[in-house]
Parts: sequence; structure tokens; C-alpha cells
Amino acid sequence: MAAVSLRELLVLGTSSAVPTRHRNHNGYLLRWDGEGFLFDPGEGTQRQMLLAGVSAHDLTWICVTHLHGDHSLGLPGVIQRVARDGVPHPIAVAYPATGEEYYRRLRHATSFLDTAVVTEHPLTGPRPSLPAGPLTLTARPLSHSIDTYGYRLDEPGGRRMLPDRLGALGVHGPLVGRLQREGVVTTPAGVTVTLDECSEPRPGQSFAFVMDTRLCDNAYALAEGADLLVIESTFLSAEAELAERYGHLTAAQAGHVAARAGAGHLVLTHVSERYDAADEPRFLAEAATTYPGPITLAHDLQHIPFPRPPRPTATT
Amino acid sequence: MAAVSLRELLVLGTSSAVPTRHRNHNGYLLRWDGEGFLFDPGEGTQRQMLLAGVSAHDLTWICVTHLHGDHSLGLPGVIQRVARDGVPHPIAVAYPATGEEYYRRLRHATSFLDTAVVTEHPLTGPRPSLPAGPLTLTARPLSHSIDTYGYRLDEPGGRRMLPDRLGALGVHGPLVGRLQREGVVTTPAGVTVTLDECSEPRPGQSFAFVMDTRLCDNAYALAEGADLLVIESTFLSAEAELAERYGHLTAAQAGHVAARAGAGHLVLTHVSERYDAADEPRFLAEAATTYPGPITLAHDLQHIPFPRPPRPTATT
Repeated sequence: MAAVSLRELLVLGTSSAVPTRHRNHNGYLLRWDGEGFLFDPGEGTQRQMLLAGVSAHDLTWICVTHLHGDHSLGLPGVIQRVARDGVPHPIAVAYPATGEEYYRRLRHATSFLDTAVVTEHPLTGPRPSLPAGPLTLTARPLSHSIDTYGYRLDEPGGRRMLPDRLGALGVHGPLVGRLQREGVVTTPAGVTVTLDECSEPRPGQSFAFVMDTRLCDNAYALAEGADLLVIESTFLSAEAELAERYGHLTAAQAGHVAARAGAGHLVLTHVSERYDAADEPRFLAEAATTYPGPITLAHDLQHIPFPRPPRPTATT
Repeated sequence: MAAVSLRELLVLGTSSAVPTRHRNHNGYLLRWDGEGFLFDPGEGTQRQMLLAGVSAHDLTWICVTHLHGDHSLGLPGVIQRVARDGVPHPIAVAYPATGEEYYRRLRHATSFLDTAVVTEHPLTGPRPSLPAGPLTLTARPLSHSIDTYGYRLDEPGGRRMLPDRLGALGVHGPLVGRLQREGVVTTPAGVTVTLDECSEPRPGQSFAFVMDTRLCDNAYALAEGADLLVIESTFLSAEAELAERYGHLTAAQAGHVAARAGAGHLVLTHVSERYDAADEPRFLAEAATTYPGPITLAHDLQHIPFPRPPRPTATT
């Protein structure tokens, strides 16, 4: 009954301010059925998309947390590629309104045949919210060195049809669709059946993207109950003082956000160039001291499946 | 007697407008003793520098041929890296003056702590020329879809000391340096010796960088007698009509420029994404139909030694 669904996080880049041999600047594509949300395109995102098998046609939204280069210098290349490849649909771009001048420079950074259709959403206020395809995109200010918004995507709740109940009440074929649309049908046997009798509530899923920030209330609010939480963990606990000073999180703090918010799958990323592969187990170990659930330390070009929704309740 | 010399071309990226799996956007560093000339930093140049072992401290000049993204979108990242790494010396940047507005956007593309010392050289006129360390940088307009300058670097000629003649005339130790500086010395034996007697002319070397352009007089003028010529060859001859329409060269045309200009080592690059590795021998073969000298089809992260100057003449 559900449309064919492809929901995954495609990791394009995972470094913080300075790229490394194995980590390109930031970049993440959330594929959500027909939508493609590109978060924080750092420099080189255009090529990382190629390496990851992502087309400019796959994009529908670009969400920029803030106008530091490692989160936005890839924007011109992505938009120019949208134009060059003749993407016919509009691309919505969200970014902090106080970064408008930088956004304009990036949008028109160099000479190109500008056929891209871009709709801009400069963000202001404590909790701007926008419809984004079938989802709702909500942003909240974070605590960094310049204005920064974290993002959250929420799927509306719905109802999951229960085939056994439909069968028992004699609802078959086209009647099922009509029941979903209209909420009540009469069967050929003359029985009136309501949607509630044949379905159960299906909570919507949610995704949160939190960077760059030190610990703050909005980091928790964005992550609240998220099925998948992508959150920066620039530092390890030994550098907690640096993290606080520059407006970043440690892995243990990221874990704490996930735990207190009741998040599902925790994805750590935005790793300082001071660490190398040998340090990676420490990120996982430190986050695990505060968060008991599943943790991934993101790598470039990694595919992370979106967690499956909870199983239907028994219907027999 | 000569200072320790490191002269090489470090290839950072070799694609044309669209990067491929194996070719990043344009970028080339010419190391010339203590100078570092970065040509056409396309997107991702900052990371390509890292992969190639180039530090921001190695740069002294950035030369941008034109303000298309594949030749300039890496500029913000490079400048921001210069600032972040605390490079103390000024970086000179040359670009077509008509691209000033785009240059300004790239220079101040996003928020960063801007401690970079940048001296700008917007180019106008038919043959702007600038001192560039020990070299002379000359630019000439090319024939592309927007204003584009090709570049050329010339080392001044000098004199090569001839050890056998110095010995025969009794010039030893500190007297040699004085002869080089002052042009004439008197030996302990009372003999007056002039520089001309103990040396021979040493022609300066030269480097040319020609892209993007269709065939035009200035392509030949830039390449005239260059020891190393880096020139775009976006297309093969089968696509000559496309090359002409979009202001590009074929490999055979690039070879023709090298041949008529009497260039030394020919380096082809800026390859269209329509070609793959299997097509590469065709670039070399087509260029070889017009140019009989050494030809390299550039690859990312390749080191190309600068051709050695001609051997001294026999002195016995």
C-alpha cells in the first residue's frame, strides 16, 4: 500500500574546517523517497556526489547550517551543476538570513549560464518551519561563532492499514483506497466500516542535523526523538575546552544529546583534522559512555540506511 | 654556483567543466625555486594540494585565466587556507579585470578570520606584464566565451660561469663572487679578468599556460619558445566543431600551437568528461600528428619536472 520507499543518508564528506586525505569537507544527502535533502555542501561536494553516484537531478533541497566555508563553499558548484545538467525542478535553499550577503556571493560566484530554478528560504526567528515535500523542515538556532541553524525533518503521522481486519470486515479491492481517502465505506454486504477499525496509528519518522554548536537547549530540541541524528563531534573529551571555546561538541557531548533526546541511530561526524584513523575507536567509545544506542562514526561515501519504522502490532 | 633549484609542475586537477572519478577540476602549481605559482584553482584545489603535499605556505602567486567556475571556484578555499595557516607573506592574484565583481565574491565568499595578505592584479590591455619574484609574468587575451587571459613566465637571461676558464685565469674563492657581482676583478697575480672571459650567456627559461581558448594569435605568442607549455585540449578532432563553438582546442590544435611556437615539452590537459581512460592514447596520437616533441597528457597529482636548461658548451 505504501509507495516504493528509498530512505538513506549518503555521506559525502566528514571533515571539519580542514579536509584530510580520507575526509572531504562536509556534505550529506538524505534521500527520502523522491526528495533529496543536501545538508552543508562543503567544497568539493560536486565531485563527492559524482563519486557517490548522486545526480544533480536527485536534489530538491539544500540546507546550509551556517556560512563558514567548510559548510557552504560547495554551494556554487552544486548550483552550477544543477544549471548545466538542466534540472527542471526548483531547488529550495535554506540558510540563516544573516548570511544573506554570503549566500548571494555563493549563488552568483562565477560566470555561468544560469538556468537553475532556486527558491530561497532565509531563516529568521527561534523556530522557522517550512513544508518540504511530504515532510516539515524545522530549524532552530544553535550556539556557534556565527549565526547557525540546525535542522530537523518530520514526517506527518498516518495510519497503517491492517490487512487481517480489512479481510474480516469484507473490505477488498478499490474499497480499500476509498476507505483510506474517505474514512468510511459500506461493503457489498451492507456493513459500514470506518478507517479506525481497519488501521492503527503510524507515527511519522524524523531526522535531525545538528552542527556546528556547543551544547545548548536547541541541540536537544532538534534531536528530540529523531530516528536518525547526524551530529558534529569535532573533538574528543581531552579537547573539551577547545570545543567550548570554538563552539563545537565532543563525542561524549554528542552522545549525551542523543541520549537525553531519545534519538535512535546516532551518526557522529565533522571530525577535526588533528585525529587520524587510529583515534576513531575513541570517538565511538567516548560517545558510548553517554549513549547506549547504535552509533556510527561517519566515513566519506558511506550509505547509512534510514532506520526502519517500528513493526506493526500483532493483528491476529 | 647556482642556488639550489626546484622547478616542477605539480598537476592538481585536469578535468574541464565537469569533474570525473579520476580528474578533479583544474589546478596546477608551478614550483620555481622559492616561488609557487598556482594556476586556475578549480573547486577542490585545497584538498588536491593536501593530496599532492603542497602547503599554503608554498604559494606566492595565483593566476586565474577566467572567471568560469572550473577555473576559479577553488580560490575561496585556497585563500581561506592561507589565512588559517597563518601564511605571513603576501599572495599576489592576477585575473581579468572584467571579472572583478566575481573575484570580489570569491575573495570574500564566506565568513572567516581574514588574515590573508593578498595583492590584486586585475589585468587589462593587450599584454599586461608584472614582475613576479625573479621572473616576469606576462598575460595576453585569448579567445573564449568570456574574457580570458593566458599566462607566460620568463626568467631573465644570465651568464653561466665556466670553471675551466676561471681556473686558467687564476680566479678562485671569493674572487668568483666578486667577478659575478662587479663584472671585473684583478687576480693576486695582477691580471685583470672580465666576466665575459669566464662565462657564457645563459638564456632564461620560460613557461606558458594557455587555456581556455580557440586557436588565436595570442595562443602562439604565449607559447613562443616556452620550455614547458601547459595547454588545454578539451576535445579530439572529431569534436573540432564543438571546440570552435565553445572556445576550446583539440589535441591536434594544441600540438600545432606547440610546434609553430617552438615549445619544448607539451602538456595537454583540461579534458572533457566525455572521454575516458581508453581515449587517452588518442589525445597523444592526435597531438603527435602536429607536434614532434615530447608530449604528456596530464593526470591528477602528477609531478612533471621542468625541462633542464641546455647543457653548457664545451669549455676545453
